[in-house]
Amino acid sequence: MDFLKIEGFSFSAVAAGVRYPDRLDLGLVFSNRPAVTAGVFTTNQIKAAPVRLGIERLKKGEAQAILVNSGCANACTGEEGLRAARQSCALIAAELGIDQEQVLPVSTGVIGEQLNIPAFQKYCGQLAAGLSPDDLPRVARAIMTTDTVAKTAHTTVQIGDRQVRLIGMAKGAGMIMPNMATMLAFVCTDARISFPELHHALVQAVARTFNRITIDGDTSTNDTVLVMANGAAGNRWIDSGEDLQAFQDGLETLCRDLALQIVADGEGASKCITIRVCGAKEAADAEKIARTVANSNLVKTAFFGEDANWGRIIAAMGRAGVKFSPERVNISFADVMLVKNGLGLGREAEAAATKVLREKSFAVTIDLQDGASCEEIFTCDFSIDYVKINADYRS
Amino acid sequence: MDFLKIEGFSFSAVAAGVRYPDRLDLGLVFSNRPAVTAGVFTTNQIKAAPVRLGIERLKKGEAQAILVNSGCANACTGEEGLRAARQSCALIAAELGIDQEQVLPVSTGVIGEQLNIPAFQKYCGQLAAGLSPDDLPRVARAIMTTDTVAKTAHTTVQIGDRQVRLIGMAKGAGMIMPNMATMLAFVCTDARISFPELHHALVQAVARTFNRITIDGDTSTNDTVLVMANGAAGNRWIDSGEDLQAFQDGLETLCRDLALQIVADGEGASKCITIRVCGAKEAADAEKIARTVANSNLVKTAFFGEDANWGRIIAAMGRAGVKFSPERVNISFADVMLVKNGLGLGREAEAAATKVLREKSFAVTIDLQDGASCEEIFTCDFSIDYVKINADYRS
Repeated sequence: MDFLKIEGFSFSAVAAGVRYPDRLDLGLVFSNRPAVTAGVFTTNQIKAAPVRLGIERLKKGEAQAILVNSGCANACTGEEGLRAARQSCALIAAELGIDQEQVLPVSTGVIGEQLNIPAFQKYCGQLAAGLSPDDLPRVARAIMTTDTVAKTAHTTVQIGDRQVRLIGMAKGAGMIMPNMATMLAFVCTDARISFPELHHALVQAVARTFNRITIDGDTSTNDTVLVMANGAAGNRWIDSGEDLQAFQDGLETLCRDLALQIVADGEGASKCITIRVCGAKEAADAEKIARTVANSNLVKTAFFGEDANWGRIIAAMGRAGVKFSPERVNISFADVMLVKNGLGLGREAEAAATKVLREKSFAVTIDLQDGASCEEIFTCDFSIDYVKINADYRS
Repeated sequence: MDFLKIEGFSFSAVAAGVRYPDRLDLGLVFSNRPAVTAGVFTTNQIKAAPVRLGIERLKKGEAQAILVNSGCANACTGEEGLRAARQSCALIAAELGIDQEQVLPVSTGVIGEQLNIPAFQKYCGQLAAGLSPDDLPRVARAIMTTDTVAKTAHTTVQIGDRQVRLIGMAKGAGMIMPNMATMLAFVCTDARISFPELHHALVQAVARTFNRITIDGDTSTNDTVLVMANGAAGNRWIDSGEDLQAFQDGLETLCRDLALQIVADGEGASKCITIRVCGAKEAADAEKIARTVANSNLVKTAFFGEDANWGRIIAAMGRAGVKFSPERVNISFADVMLVKNGLGLGREAEAAATKVLREKSFAVTIDLQDGASCEEIFTCDFSIDYVKINADYRS
C-alpha cells in the first residue's frame, strides 16, 4: 500500500471499547512536524463538542494530530462534553510529547452520551506506540460506523519539478446532505502551501464533492473534513495561479473519489445515481432541482424497485421551488430518452430505461431547455435495508 | 350509515377498469341542484390536467358533480390529457342531463399515462344510474390507491335554529407534504353559504389540517380538496362573525378527522406521531422546526424501531434553518421528559420514553423556551413496508 503513505505522516488505530467491544474505534493521524491544516465542519446549528473545539483550534491554521473515535458523537453533551474532548486531546498529546492545542478531536457515533474517557486513558499509550506510516487503512476502518467498507484514496499533483502527493480516508453512510452530513474525511499531503491557499482549496473541493452527495437529506452534528499539509515535498510555494489550480484540482479529484465511495456505500444502497440537471437559466436553479429529485423518497424507492417511474421525478421537480416550463422538460436515463417536451415516450422507452435501472451506477439527465447551466448531485437508491439499519442502529 | 347522508347529495361508484380490473375506480358525487363549491389544489408547479380544469371551472364558484377516478393521474399528459379530462366530464354530464361545465374532474394514480376514455364511455351510464344517497362510502373506496382503509367523516354545526351537516371522504397514503400532496378530499354540506365565505373557510381549514400532515415530504401533481354546499339546511345565510366561525370550526373538525385518518394510514405506517414545537418566538419558526423533524427519515425510522433516539430529533432541528438556543431545548415523549436544557436525562428517562414509543399514537413535544408560539405537525413512522409499497407500486 505504498500509494497510501507520505513521508512524515503516521497512523494508528486500536480497539478501545469506546462503546462496543472488539472493534477498531480509536484512530490517530500524526504529522512529525506541525502541519498547515484547514477544516470544513457541519453547517448544523447543533455542533458536537469536538467540532466546536476543532473550529477553535484551527484558527491558527496548524495542527499535528487528529484523534478520532467512533461509537460516541460527543454531541449534546454540554460543558462536560467539551471538557472530555479537551481531556482526550491532552491524553494523546502527553503520549506524543506535543502541545495539546496541536491535537484536533473528531467523533462520530451516538448523540447525547458522554465520551468514555477511561477508554482514552487506557488506550492512548498503545495508540501512540502503534504509529506506523503504513496504517492509514487501519484508521479508515476505525472511523466506520454503519459503513460496510473502509474508504481510502490517493492522487498526485505536479507542482513545478516536484510531485506532490495526497492521500485520504473517509466515512459516510447516512445523514449525508445537504452540507457535510455524518461524514468524516481526512486528507494528508506533502504539499508546501500556506493556510489561506489550503483553506480556499478545501472549501472549493468540498463544495463540489462532499456537498454534492446525498443519502437521506439529514445533516449531522459532527461532520468534519480536515486536510494537513506538511510541506515534505519541498515544492515551490503554492500561492496562486496555475500551481494553486493544479493543487485544487488534485484535492477535488481525491475528495470526489471519497465522496462517490460514500454514496456507493450509502446505508442500504444498491445503486449510485447521478442526477444531472441541464439547460437551466441559473446554476443555483439546476442544483435546487437536482437536490430535490435526489432526496425524494418516492424517486429513490422507485430506483430501488427498478421502476422507470419518471412521473415521480417530474413531481419532485415541481415542488423544488424553481420556475421552469413543464412542456420543455426532457428526461433521460443514461442515453435512453424517456420524456420529451414534458410527455412520456411510451412503453418501449420505459422498457429500455428499466434496463438502465438494473445497472449499479447510472445518470439521470433532466434537460430544462431553458438556459446553459448544468449541475450534478450524487445519490443512491432507498432500500428496505436503509430502514432496517436505521430502525436498529442503537439496539 | 345515516350519518353519511345529506338531502340532495347522491353518490355512485363502479369498477370501470380504468387501469386495473375488478376494483372500484370510478366515483361520482352529485348534487341535485347547483351547489356553491370551493376548492384548494396542489401547490406543485406540475399540475395534472383535471387540476388545471378544476381550477378553471371553479372560478364561477359553483358545481353540480365531482367525477373522480383512481388508477391514472392524467398528469404530464399535455393537450391530449386536457381534452380527455373535458371529454370524461362531457360523458357524465350527458348522462346526468347537466351542463358539462358543472362537472369537476379529479384523478389519482400513475403519472404520465393518458386517461382510459373507453372505460368512461362504457361505464358513465352505469355510474349515473347507480346514484344513491347512501353510497358515499363506496366513492370513498373508489378513490383509494395505496390506502388500506376508506376514510369518511361527518359532523354537525348549529347555525341559528338549524343544524347544518357536513359529510366527507378522503384518500391519502403517500406524498403527503408540504402542501396538499397525493390526497383527495371531498366534503358535502347542506349549509347555505356563499362562495367567498365557503372559500375562506376551506382555505383556513386546509391550512390547519391537511397541510399539517406529512408522510414522506413529497407533494403530488393532483391534490384536490373540494367542498360543495347545497343550502338544503335552510339556515340563515352564513356571512360573517359567529356563524362563519362556527361553520369554519365544523369544517376544520371534519378536515382534521380525515387528515388524521390519512396519517394513520400512511404508506407502511405503524404509528401516528404529533410533533409539537412550543416556546418559539414566531409561529413560522415553530412550524419549520416541526416540519423538519416530522420529515426526517432518520427520526421516522427511529420511531419505527421504537428507539428513543432524541439525538436524531435535535440533529434535525439543527438543520431546520431556524435560530434557537440548543442549551434551552426540552424534549418530551408524551409526558416523559427525555432532554432538559439540551442534555439527555439518561437511561431511565429513555426506558420510560421507549414505552411511549410502543403506543400507536403519541406526541413529541419540543420546547424551545424562547417565546410563546406553538405549532403541530402530524406524521407517521417510516417502515420497511413504505419502501416495499413504493418500490413495487407500479409493478
